[in-house]
Amino acid sequence: LLSKPAPKGKDRLLIYMGEVGPIWSYPEAALDCVVADPKKGTKMYGLKSYIEYQVSPNTTNRPVNHRYKHFDWLYERLLDKFGSAVPIPSLPDKQVTGRFEEEFIKMRMERLQGWMTRMCRHPVIATSEVFQLFLSYKDEKDWKMGKRKAEKDEAVGAMIFSTIDPEGLPDLDPIDVEHKCEQFSRFTRAMDDGVKDLLTVGQEHWKRCTGPLPKEYQRIGKAFQNLSSVFNSSGYEGEATLTDALTQAGKTYEDIALMVAEQPKKDLHYLMETNNEYKGLLGCFPDTIGVHKSAIEKVKEGDKLVATSKITPGDKITMAKRASTMSYALQAEMNHFHSNRIYDYNRVMRLYLEEQVKFYETIAEKLKHAHSQFTAM
Amino acid sequence: LLSKPAPKGKDRLLIYMGEVGPIWSYPEAALDCVVADPKKGTKMYGLKSYIEYQVSPNTTNRPVNHRYKHFDWLYERLLDKFGSAVPIPSLPDKQVTGRFEEEFIKMRMERLQGWMTRMCRHPVIATSEVFQLFLSYKDEKDWKMGKRKAEKDEAVGAMIFSTIDPEGLPDLDPIDVEHKCEQFSRFTRAMDDGVKDLLTVGQEHWKRCTGPLPKEYQRIGKAFQNLSSVFNSSGYEGEATLTDALTQAGKTYEDIALMVAEQPKKDLHYLMETNNEYKGLLGCFPDTIGVHKSAIEKVKEGDKLVATSKITPGDKITMAKRASTMSYALQAEMNHFHSNRIYDYNRVMRLYLEEQVKFYETIAEKLKHAHSQFTAM
Repeated sequence: LLSKPAPKGKDRLLIYMGEVGPIWSYPEAALDCVVADPKKGTKMYGLKSYIEYQVSPNTTNRPVNHRYKHFDWLYERLLDKFGSAVPIPSLPDKQVTGRFEEEFIKMRMERLQGWMTRMCRHPVIATSEVFQLFLSYKDEKDWKMGKRKAEKDEAVGAMIFSTIDPEGLPDLDPIDVEHKCEQFSRFTRAMDDGVKDLLTVGQEHWKRCTGPLPKEYQRIGKAFQNLSSVFNSSGYEGEATLTDALTQAGKTYEDIALMVAEQPKKDLHYLMETNNEYKGLLGCFPDTIGVHKSAIEKVKEGDKLVATSKITPGDKITMAKRASTMSYALQAEMNHFHSNRIYDYNRVMRLYLEEQVKFYETIAEKLKHAHSQFTAM
Repeated sequence: LLSKPAPKGKDRLLIYMGEVGPIWSYPEAALDCVVADPKKGTKMYGLKSYIEYQVSPNTTNRPVNHRYKHFDWLYERLLDKFGSAVPIPSLPDKQVTGRFEEEFIKMRMERLQGWMTRMCRHPVIATSEVFQLFLSYKDEKDWKMGKRKAEKDEAVGAMIFSTIDPEGLPDLDPIDVEHKCEQFSRFTRAMDDGVKDLLTVGQEHWKRCTGPLPKEYQRIGKAFQNLSSVFNSSGYEGEATLTDALTQAGKTYEDIALMVAEQPKKDLHYLMETNNEYKGLLGCFPDTIGVHKSAIEKVKEGDKLVATSKITPGDKITMAKRASTMSYALQAEMNHFHSNRIYDYNRVMRLYLEEQVKFYETIAEKLKHAHSQFTAM
């Protein structure tokens, strides 16, 4: 496991020492793509239908078409090739029923977009041949050939570590490696708990906001309007201002009911989606970390293995070097994760709070108007 | 029932024709009073304690002291003397346990104030001897004498109608009277339903606002703060801005939780109190209306009674006149009720909406601040 042939220069994945520690080598221009325009296609003379999405990378600006199953194919390739070092989050769930419903297609597209954006942001993935093929194949023939080549790629699994090159960086001590590993493991577990907690709270809040709460505002609205129509039947002159204002106030609370019910789609939705993405991502880490842990164990047994002549002293040195490389990779990956996490949570919290502010301001505005309809005293 | 001696000039209750129909004669200056400053007093060398309230009318500006049982005495006198024509709302409930607790005393005082304000506003009550005694007795002796006199007053029950004088107004047709009676009866029943509906909705909303809703905001707040402290443990440099902002956002939702829980006391409370008052008031009307209905029945039987010599033709004319007077009184009372209702509901809705606007504006303000703590991108 620890001894693999050296990689060819072209495929080497460089790691540098950045301000925050080891980091991947990032491309100068950030790759990005847009997933849009879902279209129904048919095959076998209309016997089979599917949804095709247009994927446009910012490099070529030329859209290519992909079905969900192509994304799934890409996912499998990335997992095989990079999964040992890079957590590859799952795709949005497969679904059999209702997959031609507009709401579902929109949601899947949004999640495929989120997944692709995350993949584009990862320097190892973004620069890989298979990912580039997916984004910018020239024609069907190009795609078919590329596919076949990728499927035959033998540099998969733990092979990734032999292509990683912490260029010029000193070997790490296995104890340090172990320590880093533990620390990151603790962090991802804690974050997993935090994310799940937020998701649970968010789900309950969603239910309340779309269920009992708007019903209650609606009932308040109806009660005001009902009182208004009773007042209207009094036969007493000169209370039109009050009854009109009361009706208006009632309608305002009905408006608020609708607003409350619609609001989660505008803010909580994105908070939930981001946390769902992170839940998926965090779920990949135990495996990634596990690979490292077993490598470290092996290195720690090194002296024993040499003593019992199971490996040569040279092998032992190679093993230690490889474990060090793995730790550099893990640390680069951690730093990539952290910087993305900061970016994503900052972004989604801003969006959430922005929409919440708008929501409460709009309610205040509506109520102010309702208030102005009553006679000042 | 229908034949009573004519009143003396001084006690006559005049009814005029106003723009909206028959109205009571209102005093030039509106009577008002302040109920304040509850103090614990003792009797029998400290064996018995009670709460005494200061009641200060705007006429004398001199406070007089009254215990709850004095208010209750006043209520009984007013009910005896005016209850047939004027709905006298019940006092706030008697209570045996916890009646020295601050919260209870405050609430009772507020309700006694509400009751007194309503009584002060009624021209028949406000100008009555017993009410004036209650508000402005000079000393203990004056109070004791006045009490005894009021308790001996024989002009009670249906006698009120013989003191009412629709000065110079033509007698009303019994059919018209019956119609007016029916209309008002329908209105009060419908309003009673409307008020009870609003009270039910309000109670449920109160429960939600003080129970599950703030708990949920609190949990959202805790989830944000929890995530912030997980982030804080990442060991990654330079995310203090995010973790601080996330903590801030979490605390903001905890603040909102408190605000949500406190809000009903600031707005819903007054809406509920007003509706509770009206529920009480509306509960008095069936009796008032019943007195009229039976009078009208008697008048409709008039010809038969004359034919069978049970009454004289002169009695019949007197009966019709009295029924007409009763209807004038009912209409004056209706118009009094309607104008007060418009005033009270306009006032309480303005107050409610004003506080609601403040509430939502404050939340928006707090969230805006929380939003500003995140890094702009």
